[in-house]
Amino acid sequence: MTVMSYDVNRRRVIAVAAELFARNGYHGTGIAELGRAAGLGRGALYHYIGSKEAVLYAISKDQVDSMNAAAEEVLDSGLPADELLREMARVLVRNISDHRSEWAVFFREYQALTGERRDAVVAARERYEGYWRQALDQGVRSGVLRPTPRLLVKGMLGMLNYTYLWFTPDGDLSPEELADLFLDALIDGIRR
Amino acid sequence: MTVMSYDVNRRRVIAVAAELFARNGYHGTGIAELGRAAGLGRGALYHYIGSKEAVLYAISKDQVDSMNAAAEEVLDSGLPADELLREMARVLVRNISDHRSEWAVFFREYQALTGERRDAVVAARERYEGYWRQALDQGVRSGVLRPTPRLLVKGMLGMLNYTYLWFTPDGDLSPEELADLFLDALIDGIRR
Repeated sequence: MTVMSYDVNRRRVIAVAAELFARNGYHGTGIAELGRAAGLGRGALYHYIGSKEAVLYAISKDQVDSMNAAAEEVLDSGLPADELLREMARVLVRNISDHRSEWAVFFREYQALTGERRDAVVAARERYEGYWRQALDQGVRSGVLRPTPRLLVKGMLGMLNYTYLWFTPDGDLSPEELADLFLDALIDGIRR
Repeated sequence: MTVMSYDVNRRRVIAVAAELFARNGYHGTGIAELGRAAGLGRGALYHYIGSKEAVLYAISKDQVDSMNAAAEEVLDSGLPADELLREMARVLVRNISDHRSEWAVFFREYQALTGERRDAVVAARERYEGYWRQALDQGVRSGVLRPTPRLLVKGMLGMLNYTYLWFTPDGDLSPEELADLFLDALIDGIRR
């Protein structure tokens, strides 16, 4: 084993785990299998990640945290509300497209998290939805958007999140173009 | 074991399997565990379902087939295009809400299907997307809707399908009201 820092090794284990969990399921992947794939014995694996659930937590939390950080940045940008929603959508679809295994694991498996880990991921997700509501509210205050029911955010996120199941970035559209396509329809409607 | 017809027993095994797969994952559920939960020995289980993959296929295919049958019925109804889209959305969210385990298993696990089974499910899904495109095209022809990119159907289905992750029918809204809420936003847009 090459000498690497704790963080580098830990990140590597998490990336290997995301691939395995995405392919064989969280429940279908054993800790021994994860060790073999990462080239680490049980003791070293434990040192870097603690438990299988801790890896699932790291995979899930990392993605949601990075979306929260991105949303905060976009919300601070001073963009008008419609452009702000588009930008948040672009960043999300780009991130999903760049981290398909991680997002697949998160959407499929986060229910397997327990206790404080589950609470932390749910809280981070709620914070993310809150940022989308902020963007919508800001649009209503500035007169760009009409008021819409709170639950619409779940529909907008469904539109975008669902891309983890089907979108491949080697097609005709970039993730950003796909996000724009969806937001165009939603912002202006599909009625003639 | 009570005397029951082949079909009744088979449907029961599939329902039990959907619960187990939804809770512990397809890869995380053993055939022996499925037999125990269904109260059947290995031979009887084999008689009714053949293999674990055959059960995953049945769970997935049943849901998609029933959505295709419903879509065909709605498309034949003569409703105007906007109402037709709403009705297709209502039927889908209702079905997801009534069969949450089955849909969770389908969305999370259908990639585990192989060969002809996978092809059949993918073809049935494509047929379903085709019905949504038909509804949109019909709306354009009749002057109700504006032309939109083909990929928008994936976004619309994402909005609706994603409900399997969060919607509980014991809240304030019925599945049909939720579908209407999403379709209202999409048809008329959220711009003031």
